[in-house]
Amino acid sequence: MKPLVSIIMGSTSDLPVMKKAADFLNDMEVPFEINALSAHRTPEAVEEFAGNAESRGIKVIIAAAGMAAHLPGVIASMTKIPVIGVPINASLDGLDALLAIVQMPPGIPVATVGIDGAMNAGILAVQMISLGDAKLAERLADFKAGLKKKIVKANEELKEVKYPFKTN
Amino acid sequence: MKPLVSIIMGSTSDLPVMKKAADFLNDMEVPFEINALSAHRTPEAVEEFAGNAESRGIKVIIAAAGMAAHLPGVIASMTKIPVIGVPINASLDGLDALLAIVQMPPGIPVATVGIDGAMNAGILAVQMISLGDAKLAERLADFKAGLKKKIVKANEELKEVKYPFKTN
Amino acid sequence: MKPLVSIIMGSTSDLPVMKKAADFLNDMEVPFEINALSAHRTPEAVEEFAGNAESRGIKVIIAAAGMAAHLPGVIASMTKIPVIGVPINASLDGLDALLAIVQMPPGIPVATVGIDGAMNAGILAVQMISLGDAKLAERLADFKAGLKKKIVKANEELKEVKYPFKTN
Amino acid sequence: MKPLVSIIMGSTSDLPVMKKAADFLNDMEVPFEINALSAHRTPEAVEEFAGNAESRGIKVIIAAAGMAAHLPGVIASMTKIPVIGVPINASLDGLDALLAIVQMPPGIPVATVGIDGAMNAGILAVQMISLGDAKLAERLADFKAGLKKKIVKANEELKEVKYPFKTN
Amino acid sequence: MKPLVSIIMGSTSDLPVMKKAADFLNDMEVPFEINALSAHRTPEAVEEFAGNAESRGIKVIIAAAGMAAHLPGVIASMTKIPVIGVPINASLDGLDALLAIVQMPPGIPVATVGIDGAMNAGILAVQMISLGDAKLAERLADFKAGLKKKIVKANEELKEVKYPFKTN
Amino acid sequence: MKPLVSIIMGSTSDLPVMKKAADFLNDMEVPFEINALSAHRTPEAVEEFAGNAESRGIKVIIAAAGMAAHLPGVIASMTKIPVIGVPINASLDGLDALLAIVQMPPGIPVATVGIDGAMNAGILAVQMISLGDAKLAERLADFKAGLKKKIVKANEELKEVKYPFKTN
Amino acid sequence: MKPLVSIIMGSTSDLPVMKKAADFLNDMEVPFEINALSAHRTPEAVEEFAGNAESRGIKVIIAAAGMAAHLPGVIASMTKIPVIGVPINASLDGLDALLAIVQMPPGIPVATVGIDGAMNAGILAVQMISLGDAKLAERLADFKAGLKKKIVKANEELKEVKYPFKTN
Amino acid sequence: MKPLVSIIMGSTSDLPVMKKAADFLNDMEVPFEINALSAHRTPEAVEEFAGNAESRGIKVIIAAAGMAAHLPGVIASMTKIPVIGVPINASLDGLDALLAIVQMPPGIPVATVGIDGAMNAGILAVQMISLGDAKLAERLADFKAGLKKKIVKANEELKEVKYPFKTN
Repeated sequence: MKPLVSIIMGSTSDLPVMKKAADFLNDMEVPFEINALSAHRTPEAVEEFAGNAESRGIKVIIAAAGMAAHLPGVIASMTKIPVIGVPINASLDGLDALLAIVQMPPGIPVATVGIDGAMNAGILAVQMISLGDAKLAERLADFKAGLKKKIVKANEELKEVKYPFKTN
Repeated sequence: MKPLVSIIMGSTSDLPVMKKAADFLNDMEVPFEINALSAHRTPEAVEEFAGNAESRGIKVIIAAAGMAAHLPGVIASMTKIPVIGVPINASLDGLDALLAIVQMPPGIPVATVGIDGAMNAGILAVQMISLGDAKLAERLADFKAGLKKKIVKANEELKEVKYPFKTN
Repeated sequence: MKPLVSIIMGSTSDLPVMKKAADFLNDMEVPFEINALSAHRTPEAVEEFAGNAESRGIKVIIAAAGMAAHLPGVIASMTKIPVIGVPINASLDGLDALLAIVQMPPGIPVATVGIDGAMNAGILAVQMISLGDAKLAERLADFKAGLKKKIVKANEELKEVKYPFKTN
Repeated sequence: MKPLVSIIMGSTSDLPVMKKAADFLNDMEVPFEINALSAHRTPEAVEEFAGNAESRGIKVIIAAAGMAAHLPGVIASMTKIPVIGVPINASLDGLDALLAIVQMPPGIPVATVGIDGAMNAGILAVQMISLGDAKLAERLADFKAGLKKKIVKANEELKEVKYPFKTN
Repeated sequence: MKPLVSIIMGSTSDLPVMKKAADFLNDMEVPFEINALSAHRTPEAVEEFAGNAESRGIKVIIAAAGMAAHLPGVIASMTKIPVIGVPINASLDGLDALLAIVQMPPGIPVATVGIDGAMNAGILAVQMISLGDAKLAERLADFKAGLKKKIVKANEELKEVKYPFKTN
Repeated sequence: MKPLVSIIMGSTSDLPVMKKAADFLNDMEVPFEINALSAHRTPEAVEEFAGNAESRGIKVIIAAAGMAAHLPGVIASMTKIPVIGVPINASLDGLDALLAIVQMPPGIPVATVGIDGAMNAGILAVQMISLGDAKLAERLADFKAGLKKKIVKANEELKEVKYPFKTN
Repeated sequence: MKPLVSIIMGSTSDLPVMKKAADFLNDMEVPFEINALSAHRTPEAVEEFAGNAESRGIKVIIAAAGMAAHLPGVIASMTKIPVIGVPINASLDGLDALLAIVQMPPGIPVATVGIDGAMNAGILAVQMISLGDAKLAERLADFKAGLKKKIVKANEELKEVKYPFKTN
Repeated sequence: MKPLVSIIMGSTSDLPVMKKAADFLNDMEVPFEINALSAHRTPEAVEEFAGNAESRGIKVIIAAAGMAAHLPGVIASMTKIPVIGVPINASLDGLDALLAIVQMPPGIPVATVGIDGAMNAGILAVQMISLGDAKLAERLADFKAGLKKKIVKANEELKEVKYPFKTN
């Protein structure tokens, strides 16, 4: 089983956030790998990783970084497969990481999700891969259909809230 | 008893904040309902809700949302009764939700209150309904008169603060 | 003809922005007045205005202010009819005015629209008055129906954009 | 020739920015369409568009919006193909649009590019489609190789800058 | 003993912050009073207070407020004695209160100190009163001289920090 | 005639903004001086200035600075007369200068006015000096009374705005 | 042993952050001193310190400050050796300190590191001194080589994360 | 003549800002070079440049970048000589570039100057090189002494400003 998605992060301290991307990929039965890389500490490893990802069969890279978050953009400059960037809230409520990931110059996009938005990164990766995988597209459709359940359940709970002038 | 105000939110996690709107409506004896809806998870339900609200007798909708808070604006686009938006602080101190609610394009206003400002949303709804309901207007006037009491009580407490050079 | 909406501003320099609220009210055939008031320069006039507005038949007040924008909130504290606040961009891209208007303490809401959002303030006022005026509600429904026209026209213009690989 | 990418915007005033996405798609010989839609003015048209996009053969949607930018997120909630969001700078330097697009709740991602980053949106769309189109992947590789030329040319120009103590 | 400084706040919840202003005034033996007032809940009381402050012998007013902080500016518009504004951090890290206090329009200044900067408000009040009170000026000079002691003490503590390569 | 107020700035480029402080002092017949000083270029001159200001009869110092605006705070640390800080908008809309002036640590306040708020700095200086100068207090009272005139004039101009549904 | 680097801070409350600079210098065997100084409380001591630092053999100064952080810039104006500024997060997430340190006017630079970035300040100091100290340069090279180890260790830990569809 | 400082930028559009760094180095008679590099377009060239800079005799690198400004940090990760980062204002008033440069993770500092602060970058480079070059240190001392002249000249100009109540 070869991985289709590669999740990378700069430190295991990002794992509690990034776990949600892994959970989603696993639920969707998309093979993936998780590696630690750093744009600043291991630039050669980043280069090797980015240079080989496509030929190894990786379809999408999910890269998380905080502060002056360079990892997603640096990887995006070294490959032509899509890179999804996840800004990690490590300072300034994550605004620094968001801007350092999303404001890429013309030529090198990073598909950015919200601050600490790892689950959405996983979903976005599956959306991209689904374009050429009908079975996965079905599983994704099921997931999207299931999103309503949380609202249905919330409505049941809100029914329990009682006020004299509440009518439902 | 048919509801005049509809409080909607995207998740029961918003209930602790939004309870203050319900409390106020209940105190003012204004019939209301509470429902969970999501601009993104249940768009059809949102459309049905917004399309029928006016004919069901709803006068004002209070919609709460956090992050990229689309619910109030999406509902406002589908009805001509006033929509009050409550930005929920779920990230970035609530600044993202505030901007995503208040900065609506010309044509589709949302009456926005402060971050987590659910009580003010309830009051604003009552102010609007009072325009055509003299009895409710009286209850609202009593409430406004009562706002001073908190200041009177605060002054009594501040009297208890003692310093050699404090003169009151 | 007695005014139903009162538009107030601190200076005639706000008129180019606030004109859009007047235009909309006029189009909807809602009688309105325009006055200059200042929370800081003419506090007694503000008090007199706010105290008498309701008994003069005013249903909604639209108040514009820039910088440390106190006018909407100060008026809202002195009347129980709804006050719509329009943050004027006079410094800091209007962020100071937005926060000084929307972040009202519990008890005294201001229905805030976007920065320089005068047209939306006019629409919101009409939405509120329509709750008790069926004829006005019809005119508002017509306006809302007309919003689509701008998109239809935009699509016609976009048809004119030609590219070899553009398919529509 | 059926379109693979759909570029949508809320107004023709976004065209000067969004033209760069169209230019890139055209250069890459990817069939595309351009339409005007508005999350707020034409919600039914948005729903119809989003509901049919996939069955019409659209692989990726590029949606631009300014201010309280709801269009990309609303479309993303109604389809399972990837949606790329382009925040348009219409107020607050584009920060409101960026936050209103990127900070999507878990479940509904929007692949966000930088403020006014239309060219990068086009590139990202091509990156996604290339995953299943070897010819397009080659054209993309040529484009990426060509990015260096701008730097080579810049170095030639910088050679012309003369100072007594400049050594190159 | 008549008060020279009046400390006002909107709620006793501001007392833990504002106590530092009272402490300083008491240490400097400047008679002061503390009252609760609200620009929004008790506008008439604010007007009466501001209108009489000067004739009661008050020289300086210190006004604290959070969120859309109107109290300092509203009082400043009603008196010609100096008003010192203290932005209270109640939301958005206090940035809303800071902007709502400091960004006053031309004509009505508020002497603004930092967020939660109550001690500095007390010092500033004493600096103003000292202009006409030689004895107080002496006490203030002693206080300013004493500011160095904290640094001297800090240096003693830093001497205790030991490292092989630390030379002092 | 000895100056009572000293206006200082870091560069003549601040003069167009700071002229409004000079204009106001001159109108109020308060003797003043204007000097250029820099916390960074002429620290010794700053020290000499601040050390001698009080003994030269200066009652209040108005200090303007932009960017990392240190001048007001540095002077405030060297004198016990009040220092009014004027943040100059030279970058980041003046937010950097505002924070660098207002966020002083406990012990050394700077009485901060709004961004480019030079006129308010002049008024604040006069308010402080008026505490011990009855004649000046009268001139200040006249000025405050005159503030209403601008509103009266604005109302006259707004009367000229004609609409079929405008009632005043 | 004479110190080459001088670490200064305004209060011992900054020590937990600044300790990381000291730790790094000690690890690199660079003699250093730690002192408390305050731009506002002990301006004369700051002047004496800055005036003598170079002649005492100090090569680099690391200055930490929070809020309206003047210390690094004030010292930089009084010496020609490089000053590294460390913004301390004491309010507003440290954004005030960052802007008050980094936005220095032309002529007086401060080499600014990230918010609470004391370790990086230590490294930067060593980088500067290494320019003329081959032995130290070697130790620095070893440190840089060691940065990869953290990533290697992170990868080992990430190997332990197990999912059915995780491939590494 | 071998260069001691290397100025790099991503595009010739940065030259008007960065020219001030070149001007200063030239005035100080410090040999320098200027090159265009891009962290994203020419990553291999960046790596080669950074890997060889020290052995070519470069003592300090000045790197400018805008938006998601990665160039300074990426270079800093590949060399142990000091890297000075200049945030270029290309969007969001330069705040994105400032945060993307200064907020580096522990281990890889970038000595950051203010937004568009190229002259200060040049001065900082000279300060670093001066540590081991007595002649250059003298020239730098002359420059620092000359900074006062601008203030002297400003004072002469301010003398020309005439008011009846201006005393100097």
